[in-house]
Amino acid sequence: MTDRLVGDLPVRDAESVAADVPTDADLVVSGFGSVGYPKATPVALADSERDLELTVVSGGSVGAEIDVELVEANAIARRFPYQARPPAREAVNDGSIEFHDRNISTLGDEVEFGHLVDADIAIVEALAVGPDWLVPTSSIGQTPAFVAGADELVVELNHSVPESVREFHDIYRVGLPPNRGPIPLTDPGDRIADDHITFDPEKLTAVIETERRDQPYEFRDPTPDDRGIAANLVDFLESEVEGSPLFEDSLRIQFGVGSLGNALMGALGDADFGDRDLVYFGEVIQDGLLDLLDDGELDSASATSLALSRDGQDRLYEHADRYAEDIVLRPADVSNNPALIDRFGVVAVNSALEVDLFGHVNSTHVTGNYMMNGVGGSADFNRNAAIVVLALPSTAASGDLSRVVPMVPHTDHTEHDIDIVITEQGVTDLRGNSPRETAESLIENCAHPDFRDGLREYLDRGLDRGGHIPHHLETAFDWHIDR
Amino acid sequence: MTDRLVGDLPVRDAESVAADVPTDADLVVSGFGSVGYPKATPVALADSERDLELTVVSGGSVGAEIDVELVEANAIARRFPYQARPPAREAVNDGSIEFHDRNISTLGDEVEFGHLVDADIAIVEALAVGPDWLVPTSSIGQTPAFVAGADELVVELNHSVPESVREFHDIYRVGLPPNRGPIPLTDPGDRIADDHITFDPEKLTAVIETERRDQPYEFRDPTPDDRGIAANLVDFLESEVEGSPLFEDSLRIQFGVGSLGNALMGALGDADFGDRDLVYFGEVIQDGLLDLLDDGELDSASATSLALSRDGQDRLYEHADRYAEDIVLRPADVSNNPALIDRFGVVAVNSALEVDLFGHVNSTHVTGNYMMNGVGGSADFNRNAAIVVLALPSTAASGDLSRVVPMVPHTDHTEHDIDIVITEQGVTDLRGNSPRETAESLIENCAHPDFRDGLREYLDRGLDRGGHIPHHLETAFDWHIDR
Repeated sequence: MTDRLVGDLPVRDAESVAADVPTDADLVVSGFGSVGYPKATPVALADSERDLELTVVSGGSVGAEIDVELVEANAIARRFPYQARPPAREAVNDGSIEFHDRNISTLGDEVEFGHLVDADIAIVEALAVGPDWLVPTSSIGQTPAFVAGADELVVELNHSVPESVREFHDIYRVGLPPNRGPIPLTDPGDRIADDHITFDPEKLTAVIETERRDQPYEFRDPTPDDRGIAANLVDFLESEVEGSPLFEDSLRIQFGVGSLGNALMGALGDADFGDRDLVYFGEVIQDGLLDLLDDGELDSASATSLALSRDGQDRLYEHADRYAEDIVLRPADVSNNPALIDRFGVVAVNSALEVDLFGHVNSTHVTGNYMMNGVGGSADFNRNAAIVVLALPSTAASGDLSRVVPMVPHTDHTEHDIDIVITEQGVTDLRGNSPRETAESLIENCAHPDFRDGLREYLDRGLDRGGHIPHHLETAFDWHIDR
Repeated sequence: MTDRLVGDLPVRDAESVAADVPTDADLVVSGFGSVGYPKATPVALADSERDLELTVVSGGSVGAEIDVELVEANAIARRFPYQARPPAREAVNDGSIEFHDRNISTLGDEVEFGHLVDADIAIVEALAVGPDWLVPTSSIGQTPAFVAGADELVVELNHSVPESVREFHDIYRVGLPPNRGPIPLTDPGDRIADDHITFDPEKLTAVIETERRDQPYEFRDPTPDDRGIAANLVDFLESEVEGSPLFEDSLRIQFGVGSLGNALMGALGDADFGDRDLVYFGEVIQDGLLDLLDDGELDSASATSLALSRDGQDRLYEHADRYAEDIVLRPADVSNNPALIDRFGVVAVNSALEVDLFGHVNSTHVTGNYMMNGVGGSADFNRNAAIVVLALPSTAASGDLSRVVPMVPHTDHTEHDIDIVITEQGVTDLRGNSPRETAESLIENCAHPDFRDGLREYLDRGLDRGGHIPHHLETAFDWHIDR
């Protein structure tokens, strides 16, 4: 194990490290897609029985050691930018954690500049570490920026992660504005940097050795709705790639994290894109992408996290050499970079809670009040992609609720950004349409038949009222209030 | 005048050109910031008494010849992406024009790819033209992309625009995804390209000579509210540049179009930013920027349009040589480019109709229904800037209406993007705050005292309801419904 721990480093146990963390420290931690986050220190902090009021900033979602155990120990006072575990969600909603729902791509800059927090300690999982370098594990996330922005660095050296994972890493540093400079990446699958992060050796105060594994993803089997959405997405994409010079040689695509996104990825294997290359440029590698790679359907995949099932992890790690030819892990400020999403003309495919008749999208807040997970990177992609697809089932709650609603009570993505809405019912193309035309199409093509009359009645009330967007404010939230 | 019209070109009169335009043509026209748009052809179309159902796509706002005369002739069936004249606004709101409110930066791509329209004719104002090139006038806008994307090209050669205007132009073509490549601009004031647009000579079907001038901007004198907002903005910026390494050497800033933006620009002359350079990276050059340049307060200014008063035009044109050392006009897909806004770490300062307690912003739709102008480039800047400032008076309608409201009935910018809200009352910093904390601060620091009790009552009702964003849907729009 000597090649994982190089040099005379301050190896310590988690309990003593945790004891030295100030009670109101601003902690910035590795992790994205619920993998690659520190585990030993959070557990030791949770077990310390100290009166903690920590601020915890992660790159994306992390696991139970932070968003369950630390939360249940009442140790977190403030949290950004994303969480996906019931205890954290509950604390965010009852106000016991002050939570700011933040975009992913710019978070690294904000931490380095001290605009959001004054980062005291970066706690970072690594598969190897030396006096002034570390190799991240199964996600890169905002770890490079966090390490640069924090006063102090604690490394959790996780021996359970195969060393071969480093073969996926391409850790380009974007530099800080205003001297950022263009990112020299001209093909989504290219490599332009090293597999490790360097740091000021003065910062490293502790290395904690651990073997605690990430919890793997559990993807549910595709539902009939998933399959219906996938079929409509494939139809749309097959037609779109034929009609636009944007797709002359290849289709660059991103999918949101989760079971639906995973199912949609998998369905691309059945699509006919002629002799075009299929290229993934997104946030996470999910099992569906491995299938596409195995079948030779996918040219390359760029992401910032390996969000895989246990089977997926085993497959990937066993054949890391082979997969590393096609899979690249980048920092989140590169994977989600607005310039690159724009440059490559990516098709973004993300899901949401609901969409309204005029194309506004609620991704985060149930009835406007209750936070689910967070906006994550969806706005990074939706704002800068060449074509923005919203893919969601037409109903929720076993068909009792419509996901096409009169007005969303919270907007994460505006009608200026959304191009295409796809449900298992059909497809609406918003491009070049007025809000009235969009509403007509969403009712006829995307809403579930059970809710079309209700939506039509709302639209008629709005049309009586008038205006470019024919809303009727008095009844806009009737469906949400009745829930 | 021979050097303005080079070669054996098809010079024609506007009436004959207009007569050849198909009745349902998709026209893409030059113009941005209400200048540099074609005038003779629209007037001839309006006067033709033909039964027209045109689609008209501009780069940004245009003048009365299009958005008054063509509209009043019932000649426009469909219109993107922005309008700012009462007749066009009325037609958009009563549904007689199908209008899509679209972001600026990506419009050129969408037209070139044919995703929004199948552009039949580009009608473009120029100050000089040859067999395969033209020099735009007082705005660049999306003209390069429109010329490339249209089947046919009509050039209006406007002799009223001084030839010296070409000295401002730097017409870099970003190229199309996925082969866009990095834009080689590393300083906001640099020049990287030519002063003209080239085109396929086969496309040029007509050159129309005209002397019709742009209507100049009329900026109102700063109001007490404008001055209060400006004072608070200057205080905020002075403090921010001291506290963040983002501003070690310079402050890069963008202001929205209009009298408030113009007043805010002017107020920067009184600010103390130490020995930092002040650099403008935005959409339009307004009179306030000329004042800053004259006073030696501004290092350089990059934009896509010269939206000046008559006095401002006269000043600029008389000393074009001198001003061209510091002012650069670029295509709108460069001036508003997400990569560049991000790269330079721009501070974006834009206004809006209203903001809600939790930081959502309505820029476009009065009571959610009635379109004012359009989102324009504000989302290009707000989504990608390093610091996003919303600057607006706390009230409207002579103090009868609060611009800080319980819930906005239309969202153009989400709480994920807005960092700072400034009114004449004070400043709220949203960064790192939870929605509850933001609401408290907006009530205490930004809302007008007359409306604080009402906002507090709404927040209390929401807090009784609970959730991360404590809304109370039943009463969220009471203020808007009562209007």
